[in-house]
Formats: sequence, structure tokens, C-alpha cells
Amino acid sequence: MKLNDNIVALATPSGAGAIAVIRVSGPQAIEIVAPVFKARSKKDIREQASHTLHLGNMMDGERILDEVLVSVFHGPKSYTGENTIEISCHGSPYIQQEIIQLLIRKGCRSAEAGEFTLRAFLNGKMDLSQAEAVADLISSENQASHQMAMQQMRGGFSNEIQKLRQELLNFASLIELELDFAEEDVEFANRDEFQKLVSRIQQVLKRLIDSFAVGNVLKNGIPVAIVGEPNVGKSTLLNALLNEERAIVSEIAGTTRDTIEDEISIGGIGFRFIDTAGIRETEDVVESIGIKRTFEKISQAQVVLYLFDASRLQDLKPEPDRHPELVSGSRESGPGLDQVKLEIEKIRNKFPQKPLVILANKVDQLSELQVEELNVSLSGVEGSSYLPISAKTGIGVEDLQQKLLQFVNTGELRNNNTIVTNSRHYNALLSALEEINKVQEGLNHNLSGDLLAIDIREALHYFGEITGEITNDDLLGNIFANFCIGK
Amino acid sequence: MKLNDNIVALATPSGAGAIAVIRVSGPQAIEIVAPVFKARSKKDIREQASHTLHLGNMMDGERILDEVLVSVFHGPKSYTGENTIEISCHGSPYIQQEIIQLLIRKGCRSAEAGEFTLRAFLNGKMDLSQAEAVADLISSENQASHQMAMQQMRGGFSNEIQKLRQELLNFASLIELELDFAEEDVEFANRDEFQKLVSRIQQVLKRLIDSFAVGNVLKNGIPVAIVGEPNVGKSTLLNALLNEERAIVSEIAGTTRDTIEDEISIGGIGFRFIDTAGIRETEDVVESIGIKRTFEKISQAQVVLYLFDASRLQDLKPEPDRHPELVSGSRESGPGLDQVKLEIEKIRNKFPQKPLVILANKVDQLSELQVEELNVSLSGVEGSSYLPISAKTGIGVEDLQQKLLQFVNTGELRNNNTIVTNSRHYNALLSALEEINKVQEGLNHNLSGDLLAIDIREALHYFGEITGEITNDDLLGNIFANFCIGK
Repeated sequence: MKLNDNIVALATPSGAGAIAVIRVSGPQAIEIVAPVFKARSKKDIREQASHTLHLGNMMDGERILDEVLVSVFHGPKSYTGENTIEISCHGSPYIQQEIIQLLIRKGCRSAEAGEFTLRAFLNGKMDLSQAEAVADLISSENQASHQMAMQQMRGGFSNEIQKLRQELLNFASLIELELDFAEEDVEFANRDEFQKLVSRIQQVLKRLIDSFAVGNVLKNGIPVAIVGEPNVGKSTLLNALLNEERAIVSEIAGTTRDTIEDEISIGGIGFRFIDTAGIRETEDVVESIGIKRTFEKISQAQVVLYLFDASRLQDLKPEPDRHPELVSGSRESGPGLDQVKLEIEKIRNKFPQKPLVILANKVDQLSELQVEELNVSLSGVEGSSYLPISAKTGIGVEDLQQKLLQFVNTGELRNNNTIVTNSRHYNALLSALEEINKVQEGLNHNLSGDLLAIDIREALHYFGEITGEITNDDLLGNIFANFCIGK
Repeated sequence: MKLNDNIVALATPSGAGAIAVIRVSGPQAIEIVAPVFKARSKKDIREQASHTLHLGNMMDGERILDEVLVSVFHGPKSYTGENTIEISCHGSPYIQQEIIQLLIRKGCRSAEAGEFTLRAFLNGKMDLSQAEAVADLISSENQASHQMAMQQMRGGFSNEIQKLRQELLNFASLIELELDFAEEDVEFANRDEFQKLVSRIQQVLKRLIDSFAVGNVLKNGIPVAIVGEPNVGKSTLLNALLNEERAIVSEIAGTTRDTIEDEISIGGIGFRFIDTAGIRETEDVVESIGIKRTFEKISQAQVVLYLFDASRLQDLKPEPDRHPELVSGSRESGPGLDQVKLEIEKIRNKFPQKPLVILANKVDQLSELQVEELNVSLSGVEGSSYLPISAKTGIGVEDLQQKLLQFVNTGELRNNNTIVTNSRHYNALLSALEEINKVQEGLNHNLSGDLLAIDIREALHYFGEITGEITNDDLLGNIFANFCIGK
């Protein structure tokens, strides 16, 4: 880990925009920028106070590259803990590149992915789990993932772990002290107190480990399979589920409609909708491959939506007097209600544990009696709930949103508990618990101090892995390689 | 033009990145941000000095939206001339949007495209032509367009125009003063001095008007048509022409290879390469439509490259002893040298004035004698230059780059002259010259002051249109609608 050189990178997304920010960090960051920055005030930035902003020109010799705003940060009061310069320039990719190239000629090195945050970690500005949360924060797409990342970045469970680690370390020291006085048979470490600490640690670890299941799902979005033939209204339903919140995102950030079809935020929770081809039975071999795929996709989902077009059911009792248009032949191509029930049964048999919601779409085109008939037929299906909806007019859409939220155990999130979302942390917590359980067992069997000490050291090791007190270059390399450049 | 409200927008490109910058400008910008920003230092940003940076949290009630860095600018010492806050947050689209929505709830309005720069103009921070240069600067893709935009933004020719306008205005006032004393027959405005000023203005206007042709081409890239059948090596040639400079761009800014095929920067000048299908004669009707299209594309180009595969010429004298592999039947599908010469002649006949470069590709696969034979056959074609190249090995590529640069009249650019690139300015300059010519004519005919004054006023009007002293909402609307939001 080299920390004595100076790094530069574009910190804002690539592409054209009003402004772009170029970041320089390192012991000579200010010295490198000073000669190529001509301040409007004529004052050298080396003489400026920390946390100040200066207008001027970036100069490549006599050539003006851009009129820029330079922010000066003196280490350790900066993100990386080092001297840092941020250059706010016009957002032309050409200009960004010219400035970066200039700074590289003047002695900077192109920063690697995550290197600014890596330096922040190495300089003690944050612990490792906080550094990891920075990447999570940047990729957060909804309230739940944002809240979890923010919590972790602000200390979150690593504060808790660090405190427990310190207490455990104190006991370990006392027990190891006993070893020095082995022949005198003294007990520096009060075993009762130690027993209490071990129980407390077990509780905390178990809670954190349990939180991973919900955390992981919340972070990546809850997978929901939509089972339904083409043209039953799947994309209309997805559009109807889009709440205003998300619609605004797409307006402001210029996100594409494509991603909306994949992930929709409902009540601050991300849901990943997985489109399937349906499971209609046919003679065709290709089709049955399709059904196999549908089942595969269902198996990956946490919730299944079964969607069908109720307006095209062949065998719903028509009411010619009140709805003459429904007698028309248009329904002929649709399935019968029996077919629908058969398909639902198939899903239930194959996935008896999976929450299933049966959605009868386009009920706005049915008569009251027909709606009632459907209700009677479908409400009773075991292990499922039935909802009549109209994706087009919005009937039942809010009910569906509520139902989806019910499937999520968001209790932990709502109660502001710390939630583990990172599988590296999860594994370290599992290993730590295993070691602590061994310590517990040792205590139960009145194991001698020297044997207890070994397991305690192991547990301490795993705690340290989470916060980064114990680490190595490979681990750091892996973690920061997933960051974007400039962070 | 409302200036009494407060606007907010994302200033950095949309999408995820290390950081994003949100800009707030308006009389209450600081007052709006202060209650939702909790500074680490506990000090209210309303009490902070201009041009200072503050770390803290953006708060939506009790909820922390992000840890951000806030820049404080007191008007008029800001980009817009108003009080301005820049919020540097984590580059998650979700966070960006949450912060923007929060500020909108607190009283900001979503900024319209270019509104920050519009305010800078309306507050006298820059003139209109400088404001227009901001957009040019952001979209500049190579050294030439960057240099022109930068020149214009730093005052460029608008300083010159403004100075002339002031002098002209002085004369206009004196002449109009004469009108008040009409019966006394005095001449406040020295006619000889005035004549000198008019000549000077005419010279400046003519130079600026002439610069538009080269400026326009430099700004948009010089169009170069490549005429050649498929598989003669067009894309290999384009890749070979890519200089390192540009390759670095694509690495840093994540630009796609697609755009590179369209526009290549050579020696700081942009060239737009237009691919054509070639002009090989066939019986096929569809093909002759293809030839018509090729001719259309050639007519839009400033330079034509005719590219053929010399290694597949049927009738080059083989040399079995030295190059046995060239005797193989692989050449059979290629055209004859006569065919090549016929096509070249066709282009020359249709576009006698257009610079043409004949490129024999893959000469690395020919013997010396064959290269010599080609040279004898093709060097003499009137109005064209001939270059043997190998796009693959790089033979002749540098020569081609030099040749392309020769076609560009970059004298004006190299001499650091002001160059007009904006067609709005060009048209205003043309109109101004027309009016000045009328003034000149009036002077020649000893026209009375009141008649001279009318034409002078007209010329002043067009000068003012360039710098924005004379403007209207429609014009401003048109200009700033082309800006990106956040600028």
C-alpha cells in the first residue's frame, strides 16, 4: 500500500454535464496543483486556508484549459485524511481529460478504483465496514438500501462490534496475565463477569446474523416472479405499480424506462420483478422448455404473482342484458377458468411454501356478478391470496402494493436496528459466533485460561476482520476493486 | 424573467459516480439550505464566510439523507451573481433525487435548462456571447473547438465588438447632438475621425465574418468522406488514425468505440469520417441507388478519401520468385487497376474542386516493383494526391494525417485570432456590416447627420444583439434551451 504518492481521478460520472469534479489527493496535492492554477485573486493556493474555494484558470503553460473553482483541504481534515484538492471544471469530457493529463504530467498518478476511500481507511478516517458502506451508499437505489448503507457508514454495527471486541480484549489480557502467574493459581479475570460478556456477545452476534437474511433481500430488492401469458397486462401492471416517487427519479436523473421494468420501489423497498413466459400447457416441445424456465424463475423468487386476463375467460357467465359487448366472440381465444385454476394448482404443488397472489386483471370489463363468480372460485385457493385488479384503471393496485409490503419482514428496518447486508461481514460474524460458542463451552467445562485464550483470540480475529483492524492486501484489494474510480 | 425565486438542479452528469453536485441559486439559497444542513462544526452556514466549505449531514427531519460537503457563495461573488450553495453528495441517483426533492419542498424550484447561466447573464456576470460559449465549452470535443469556445468565453470578439460599439455610440451621440443645433450648422462629430472608425469597423467585421467558415468547420469537425468497397480496410484505417490522445479519452471518460468511428481528433482538430458504400458499377438497381447515396455523401464532405485494397488487384504484375504467395487465386475477386482508375475519374469528374486522396491499402503485401507500378499509375491523377498505406502495419498513416491537416485552414486558429463559430453571431455581424456599409456610403455622399444617425442606430442594434445589450425573452429562451439543466 503506497501512500506517499499523489493520485488524481474524475470523481463525477463520466459524460458531459454542467460541471465535473476532479480530485487530487496526496502529500503534495496542493504543491502539484498550485503552479498550474492561476487564481483570480493572484494568491497562491499554498497560502490559502483549508476548506476554502478559489476561482481561477487551469493553465497548461500559456494555454488556458478552463476556468475552474478549486477547493483546498488540508490533511487530516479531508476525506482521505491527506492534502486534497478538488477541481470543479466545465463538464466537457475533453476538458476533464486535458486537466487530468496535465496533472499526471505534473506528477500525479491515475487513481485506482476505490483508492480515495482506501486511503481514508488506511489513514484511520473510517473503519473497513464504513468504507464498504460508501460503495453501498453510492449504489443504493431505494430508501431501504440507502438507510442500511447510511447506518453502516455512520458506524452502525461496527461500533457495537468494536466495543464488544474491546471488552473481550480486556478479558483476554487478564486471562493471559493469569498464565504468567500459573503456579500461583490466581484469577485476574472474573469468570462470572466474563460469562455475562460472552452471553451478551452471543446475543448480539445472533441478532446480527439473523438480520442478514432480511438485509440481503432489502439491499438487492425482493425478487417477485410474475407468471402470466403474453398480453395479459404484465407491463401495464408494472407501470401501475410505479409510484410517483420513482417516476420523479426517472425525470430527474434521466434513468431509462428499462430499469423501471426490472426494479420498482414500493414504500421505500425495492422489488425486482422477474418476467416469466407463463405455464400454459401445449404440445410444443419448445413451449415445455419455456415452462421449465418459468419454474426456475419462480424458484428464485420470494413472492409469486399469477396474472391472468379475466375479461377473456371463456366460461364466465355472460350477462347479455347488462353487458351486451361481453357476449361477442372476443373471448374465444382466452382460457377457461378451469385452466386458470389448474395452473394455479400446479404452482402450489411445486412451490407449496412460496407466497402466491392470484391477480384477475381487467375486472373493470366484467359485470358485478362475474366479479363475484371469480371471487367465489379463486378466493379459497389454499396458501394464496386473490385480488381482482385492473392495471389500466388502477383498481386493486394499492391493495397489491400493501400485500407485497406484507411479505417483507421490515420490522428490523423500521425499528432502526442495525442490519448486516455484506456477506463478508456475515461470514465473519458466523465464524466469530462459532469461536465464542467454543469459549462458552470452555467456561462451562471450567477450561483452563490458556485454552480459553486460544478461542478468544480466534473470535477477536474475526471481529477485527469486520472493522479492518486485522486485514491484508488481498482482502483490501478485493474490497476496493468493486468501487468506482474517483471514490 | 423571474429572478426573485430560488432554483435547484443537479449540475453533474446523471448516473452513479463517486460524487454528485447539486446547485442552489437565488436570494434565499443559503436560508433554504441552512435548516436542512447540520454542520459537523455546529455552526450555521448563514454565519459562514463566502467561498468556504463545510462538512455535515443533509437532514430530512430526523432522517439523514447523506453526509455532504456544502460550498457557500455570497452574491454577487458567485457564478450566477446570486447567493449560491453547492452540495457535494455521494453520487447515488437515489440520494441526488432525495436531496433535490427535499430542497423543492423547502421552497426551491427545479431549474430550467441553462437557467444558472441565464441568471449569470441577467446579473451582468457575463455578456450573451460569453454565456453562449459556456455551452460550446461543455460540448467541445477537441482542442480546436475547446480553444474557440474558451476564447469566446474569455471575452473573445465580444470585447472587440463592445469597444467598437462604444466608439460608434459616442459618434452617434455627437451626431444626434448636432441635430439639436441644426440651425447653427455645427459639427460636433469630426467626419474624418468618424470615417477612420467606420473603416476600422468594416475591417474587423469582414475579418470576423470570414472566420465563420473555418470556425464552423472546426467546431463541428471537418467532414471527410471515405469511398471504398466493404472489406478494403475502412475501419482498420479509422483505428489507425486514432491517435494516442483520443485513445486516452476513451479510457478515462468511458466513451464508447462507436463515437470514435465517427469523429477522430487529429492534431487537435476534429474530423468527421463519413462512411460510404463505394461506387463500384453493377447491374443491380439497388446498387446504383447506393452509388447515388455515395455521391450525396461526397458532396457534403470537404475532403474525399478513395480507399482500395491493393493486395487484391487482379492485374498487378505478379513476381512468383520473390512472392510466391501472391500468385494464389485470392486476387480473382478483386477489381483491376483500370476499374480503380475509372472510379477515381468518376469522382474527379463529378467533384472537380474537392480535394481527393487516393489510398492504396495493404501495400505491405506487395513487392517493391508492384508498389512502384501503382505509384506510376496513380500519382499522376489530376487534382488528387496518392498515398500507399497499410492501415494494419501503420505505413503511410502519419503521412495521411499530415495531408488531412493541410486541407484545414488553421492559420487563424494557430495565430490565436478570434473566430466566429455561432451562426447567430455570424448573421448579426453580416447585418451590422450591411448597416456600416450604408453609413460609409452616407459619409461618401456627405449625407446629413439625421440620416447617418438612422443607419448608425441600426448597426448599433446588431452589435448589441451579439453581446446581449439588446435582447428579448424569445431570443434568450432559444439560446438557453440548448443548455443542459444544471448549467
